[in-house]
This record gives sequence, C-alpha cells and structure tokens, in this order.
Amino acid sequence: MLTLLLLGFQSHAQNGDEMQLKRIYDAALTDGKAYDWLNHLSNQIGGRLSGSLEAQRAVEYTKVQLESLQLDRVWLQPVMVPKWVRGTPEFAYMETSPGITSTVPIRALGGSVATPLGGLKANVIEVKGIEDLRALGENKIGGKIVFFNRPMDPTKISTFEAYSGAVDQRYSGAEEAAKFGAIGVIVRSLNLRLDDFPHTGSMSYGDTAEGDRIPAAAISTNAAEMLSTTLKLNPETKFYFKQHCKQFDDVQSYNVIGEIKGSTHPDEIIVVGGHLDSWDLGDGAHDDGAGCVQSMEVLRLLKLSGYIPKRTIRAVLFMNEENGLRGATEYAVKAKANNENHIFALESDAGGFAPRGFSFESSDTHLKRVHGWKPLFKPYQIHLFEKGHSGADIAPLKNGDNVLAGLRPDSQRYFVHHHAANDTFEHVNKRELELGAAAMASLVYLFDKYGVEPAATLGN
Amino acid sequence: MLTLLLLGFQSHAQNGDEMQLKRIYDAALTDGKAYDWLNHLSNQIGGRLSGSLEAQRAVEYTKVQLESLQLDRVWLQPVMVPKWVRGTPEFAYMETSPGITSTVPIRALGGSVATPLGGLKANVIEVKGIEDLRALGENKIGGKIVFFNRPMDPTKISTFEAYSGAVDQRYSGAEEAAKFGAIGVIVRSLNLRLDDFPHTGSMSYGDTAEGDRIPAAAISTNAAEMLSTTLKLNPETKFYFKQHCKQFDDVQSYNVIGEIKGSTHPDEIIVVGGHLDSWDLGDGAHDDGAGCVQSMEVLRLLKLSGYIPKRTIRAVLFMNEENGLRGATEYAVKAKANNENHIFALESDAGGFAPRGFSFESSDTHLKRVHGWKPLFKPYQIHLFEKGHSGADIAPLKNGDNVLAGLRPDSQRYFVHHHAANDTFEHVNKRELELGAAAMASLVYLFDKYGVEPAATLGN
Repeated sequence: MLTLLLLGFQSHAQNGDEMQLKRIYDAALTDGKAYDWLNHLSNQIGGRLSGSLEAQRAVEYTKVQLESLQLDRVWLQPVMVPKWVRGTPEFAYMETSPGITSTVPIRALGGSVATPLGGLKANVIEVKGIEDLRALGENKIGGKIVFFNRPMDPTKISTFEAYSGAVDQRYSGAEEAAKFGAIGVIVRSLNLRLDDFPHTGSMSYGDTAEGDRIPAAAISTNAAEMLSTTLKLNPETKFYFKQHCKQFDDVQSYNVIGEIKGSTHPDEIIVVGGHLDSWDLGDGAHDDGAGCVQSMEVLRLLKLSGYIPKRTIRAVLFMNEENGLRGATEYAVKAKANNENHIFALESDAGGFAPRGFSFESSDTHLKRVHGWKPLFKPYQIHLFEKGHSGADIAPLKNGDNVLAGLRPDSQRYFVHHHAANDTFEHVNKRELELGAAAMASLVYLFDKYGVEPAATLGN
Repeated sequence: MLTLLLLGFQSHAQNGDEMQLKRIYDAALTDGKAYDWLNHLSNQIGGRLSGSLEAQRAVEYTKVQLESLQLDRVWLQPVMVPKWVRGTPEFAYMETSPGITSTVPIRALGGSVATPLGGLKANVIEVKGIEDLRALGENKIGGKIVFFNRPMDPTKISTFEAYSGAVDQRYSGAEEAAKFGAIGVIVRSLNLRLDDFPHTGSMSYGDTAEGDRIPAAAISTNAAEMLSTTLKLNPETKFYFKQHCKQFDDVQSYNVIGEIKGSTHPDEIIVVGGHLDSWDLGDGAHDDGAGCVQSMEVLRLLKLSGYIPKRTIRAVLFMNEENGLRGATEYAVKAKANNENHIFALESDAGGFAPRGFSFESSDTHLKRVHGWKPLFKPYQIHLFEKGHSGADIAPLKNGDNVLAGLRPDSQRYFVHHHAANDTFEHVNKRELELGAAAMASLVYLFDKYGVEPAATLGN
C-alpha cells in the first residue's frame, strides 16, 4: 500500500514535470524572444570583441532587456578586460616566383603582434603540428614562416573533438615556432569545410619576451590546401603577410546579470549563462550571442510558464570569454568572496543549433540522478546526457558538491562559422535557437525543483 | 560453458559490426561522393519536375554515375509520368481600395489549372481550414477567393507532424472550396518561418469535373500574415492573381536503378532509395536530391568499406514522387510481376540534415530486433528508432514479412526550404549529408548481414 502511494506520488510528480516542460517548450516556440534579441545583438550591434564599443553597447542593451523582464535584480559586475584591436588592412599573398602572386584570405589571430609596417615576406616551412618543430630544428625553421597545416579530423563525429585535436597549432604555434627562429606563423583555419573564410581565435605567447614575439595569422582552408600544393611544386614559394593588430591597456567592462530570487531557498544559486563578447569578424550570432539570448530566455520562459523558482536563478552574460576569461574569473572570485552557494550552473556556448542534450561535470551520483530525468526530454529529441566539459565561463564555479553542465547542440555546422566572418544571424535558425532555450529552461526547472544534495550527504 | 561461448561469439560479432560501421562512417566523411553528386544535380541540372528536360538529364547523369561504381547491373525502368508546366509569369496583389495594391509572392500549386488569361480578381474569404467551409456555406463563399490560412503548429517538435496537420488545405482546398462556389484558392505556405517564399506542392481536384476546377496557389507566410491583417482592417480587400500553368499529356520517363548482386542470397532484395524528381522552384537539393545521392552513396560505401553483400542491394532513384508516385507504383508492380522478394527497403526523403535515426514500418518482433542494433549507432548520435512512416516511394513494397524504414534527419529546417525557391544546394551541409549516407549504409549492412525472418517463422 505504501509502495502504491509512493508510486502514485512519483507518477503525479512525473506528470507535473511533463506538463511543466510542455509549458516551457510551448512558450519558447510560440512566444519566444530569443531570436529578436539575437537579431539586435547581431545586426544592430555586431561583433563584440572585449573592450570594443560594440561590447559596451551589448552590455547596455542586454541590461535593459533583462530589466524589462521584471526580475528581482539586474546589475552590472565590473571587470577589467584586455583590449586587442585588429587594425586594417590585413593582407597576404603567396609568391611562386618574383612578381607571380596569389592573394590569400588571412586574418590575424587574437592577441598576435603586428608584422613590420611593410609586412613580412619569407620562405615557408609546412608542418603538421607543433610536434614537428623539434625534428626540423632551427636549421630548417630559422628565418622562415611556419605554416601549421594539420586539418581537423573529419572522422570525429563531435566536431568539438576534432577542434580539440587541432587547436594547439593556433594557440601555441607562434610561441613554439619562435623558439626555433621562425619569424612568423600562419595556421590553417579550424574549419572542417573547404572554403575561403579565415577563422581567428585566441593565441598565447606564453612567457616569450616581448621582443621575441612573432606575428601569427589564420588563412582559409582553401588557401591552406593551395599553399600546401604550391609548396610541393615549388618549395621556394614565399609568403607575404601584413597586419597591424595591437594590444592596448585593459579597459573597463562588465558581466551582465539578472536574477529571480528563490522563494524558499534563496541562498542556493543556479546560474545559466553564455558569453557576451565575440570575435570581431562576424556578428557573433552563434558564438555566443545564441548562448546569451538563450540564457535570458530561460528566465523569461520560467516566468511565462507560471513557475515560481524555489532557488535563486541567475542569467549571467559573461564578458571576455574569447581572449581572457576575465568575466568568468571575476564572477567566481566575487561568488567566493560573498560565500555564495552555486548548486548548479549551465552554459550554452556551442552555437544556436538544434539541441541534442547536455554534458555534465558532476559526481556519478549526481549524474545518475540527472539520468532519471532523461525520459522527460525524450519528446523533445534530447538524448545526450553525458559526462563532459560544461563551459569555460562556469568552470571556475566547480566544487565537489555542485553540478556544472553545457548545452550540447548538434555540432556539425558549428566550425563552418566559428570565429569567422560568416558567424552571422542568418545562419541561426529560429526554431533551433528556441529549442535550445527550452531545453535549458527545462533542465534549470528540474534542478530548481529537486535541488542538488551535497556530496557528503550522498556519501560520494 | 555454452553460454560463455555464445557470449564470446556475440561480442565478436558485435565487435565486427562496430568495426564495419566505423569503416563506413570513415569512408563517408573522408572520401564521400554524395556532396559532389548533389552539387551536379542541383547546380548543373537544377529543379527536376517530372516530364521536364531537367528530370531527363538527371536520369542520364545518375545512370552514368551509378555505372562508374562498377555495380553488377545498372538500368532504367520505363514509366510514363504526368507533365505539368508552371508557365510564367505568376503574379498577384492585394487591393485594399481601387488602385492601392501590394504585390504578393505567389506560386501555383502543382496540378492547378490556370487563371483566365487576364487573371482573376475577387473578394477574399479567410478560413482556418476545410472544416470552416460548410459553416460559411455558398452564401459567404460563392464568387470569392478562399484564403486557407491555418499555420503549421509550431509546438510540434517534429515539423513533419506540423506539416501533416496543415497540408490538407493545400491538397484538397480547391476541390472542397469549389463545392461552395469559390472561384479560386490561395493557401498559406507550409512553412514554419515567416518569410517571403511561396511553397508549392501537389494538390488534387478529386473527381471535380474539368470545367469546375478552380485555380489554386500558395502565397508566402509573410504575405498570409499581411493579407489576414489587411482583411481585418478592410474586409472588402480584393485579391488578384494570374497563372498560366497547364497539364500536358503523360511523357516517358524512368526510374534509375543500380544493383549489387547478393553473394549468397541473391533473391533477397534490399532497396535503398530517394526520388529523382523535384519541384521546379528551387534546385531540389534537400527534396530529394539528398536522398538520391545518399542512396547511390550507400552502394559506394559498402564497396569502399570492403563489404561483400550477401543479399542483392539496389539503389532506386524513383521518378515522380512529387506529383503522381508513378515511379514508385511501377517499381512495385514490376517487383510483384517478377516475384521479387523485397525483405527490406529504406528511403531518404526528409532532407539532407543531420540524421537523428530511423522510423520503421514493421512488426513489433522485427522492430525489437532492430532495437538491438541501437547501441551500434550510439557513437554516431543516431538515437531515434521508432515506429512510423517510411517513405512514399517504398510504401507500395510493404507486405507482412518485410521491413520498411525511413531516414529521420533533424527536421527543424526542412520546411524552411521544402518545395520553395530556397531549396538549394548551399543549404545542404556536406557533413550532415554524409552522416545521413553513412547511417543508411550502416543499417543496410546490418539488414544484409542478418536478414529478415518472415513473420510466419517469428510467429508474429
């Protein structure tokens, strides 16, 4: 009899959850605001590189929009951010023999130094990765431009895995090549498609002294194929590039935060977020305008669906994920200083594509609990509930007790647009964006309703 | 001990299947041909309406391409097809008062009659569906243009479900409205997105006498919204449209078929197919160029991966799915006449988007067996194995013993392009197309290897 009662209770709860998810999804798909917000961020504001006017306008715009949702509190959290400016024009060509040149689509990597004013011209040595440098040595590399040309692995089904397998060339290529006397670095764009878009992204000089830093840039995948073929035909082919990028002093910026205060457990905080900054080449619609508007939409959908959160739910639009993580760091520092208890955090930073599921950083016990919710998501074609990376901005919030998660949209098209001039609004599908927001709101609802037990009580 | 041996055997088989699927996927993603074929079909040939020159060129092109695969047999199966021609120009406007007009994007529905040469102008009556007609009656409808304006339901997660819930307006709207004296029909495009593309598609006059047939056309979703608002402000708004479409006599066409003969069970036939014809507005890349090149690719991938099929595997490119199903009918008639045993058929006709899984028409016993293969597909993010519609072209092959299946790609973007001028090659992502082909080849491989037991032996 007790069992029956419990079953009855469970099925009642399950039923209530089903209905709540349906309300969330219906609201997202019939009365969504995420797409309009993204339109504004993308088309009226544009690329939002940290320290830019656009980034500041995005701070102001999203603050006003969050205020319009009648939350309990909306505020800006100050943070100093790096300001790197691309400068124009950027220009490159390959020269097979004196005067015979082909223009190459090129864009400086974020954080790179400029070339000399007149540009840089040298012979090219092609490598498949950083690991090739030592074998070649200073003898073969000195005075040359190193061309990193290891493609992303097309056999990886998750394109993020393919990205992880190739991104070291972009991030550390210049630092490593300089050790062997290289005078510049060009990197094959991290794009699985052959096309003409160079894809920028962050790079680091590590502890290379300022005077020893060499300029680094990305060339398009088509150009990389062309250059590689050309070098086989004529190893004496020269490469020329010119860029005027510059690092300025840090400037003031902000995380944008909106919050619904918890009705019964206000001290337990749930964060849902994306990053407000983007690279400067496109308008940052997928990376990560989508994650920002979806996070804002989560608060809105919970309100629209008539749900009163028990816990405090915050949308956090982090500043400077792309080239510094200053916003994420500052948010975590302040959270710690204020002794805030973040029980769950969810980030969307993998594009506004049709959602497939979530990846979780958590104990196995917590993950098992989350797996129990999987059937609730089946009608919405959400099927991935896996251990894995959550998100760069929420990672600093990790502790032994809480759960971090990342939205996992379909990844096939992401790197077509990532950090390139074609990361633009028209490549975001309204329904796909909305389904992502609804999936996020559903997961936030479940974590809010059922909470997260500290590891100690779970004996984990 | 026997159990252990069996388990050992099973795990060995499982392992072999895992490796075979990996070979298929690797080949599709590194050495695929589907995208190049689709480029040719879309950009060098274009929209392939039954009876058109383009359709004939597509027959010839795909035959040559199949022949290049060194199959055991490639042939054309003759079939007579209807020939409906759109004619130009098509033109429409709404007129709120004499001389005050707005142009409306419009395209005739496939199979519609023309308007009078000078066009048709009349008052408009808006309805939400065929079921509204009777209540309004001849009194309200007679002499008017009926405007069917029930949108697809955005809360359906499968957009095909939303389509099913609205398509009767397009298919039967003219037949039904004519019964109440309507002189023309315009239909809101079957598109979940608000945009300016009219979406054509098949319609039927049922047994309406030729003289009583009224012209029918689709207007874009934006135009439908605008017209609806305008009618609220001014119910006397008139609508004008002009179209010159015409039905000609049937013409000769063909199904294109390529086959690998089974090595041990040549009399058991597995079909994988799509339809070669398309509507005329775009280039038919998603509907259904994608399904055709994926079906051809299945044969190629099986060969590339070194697999020798036990059973006979046929790629069938069906002609005239869109407005007649003549190719499908003819194929089934001939299969029956030749006493062919089709044990499994798989169709791809839902766009070249990232695959989510398959829907099956089969007995529960067969479905249960297929469910056993699900873990093999998990690494490829294939998660839907559900009962449901397979495909219009293979449906006539259904019998009590066999299994029919349809590829289920992500459906969110499909109706943005379906039957409209923006169903074009650049909206197909290469990897998404390839992943679909690989999923199809994997399922065909499993059915070939393990066969399909007749229902009688299963006691089902």
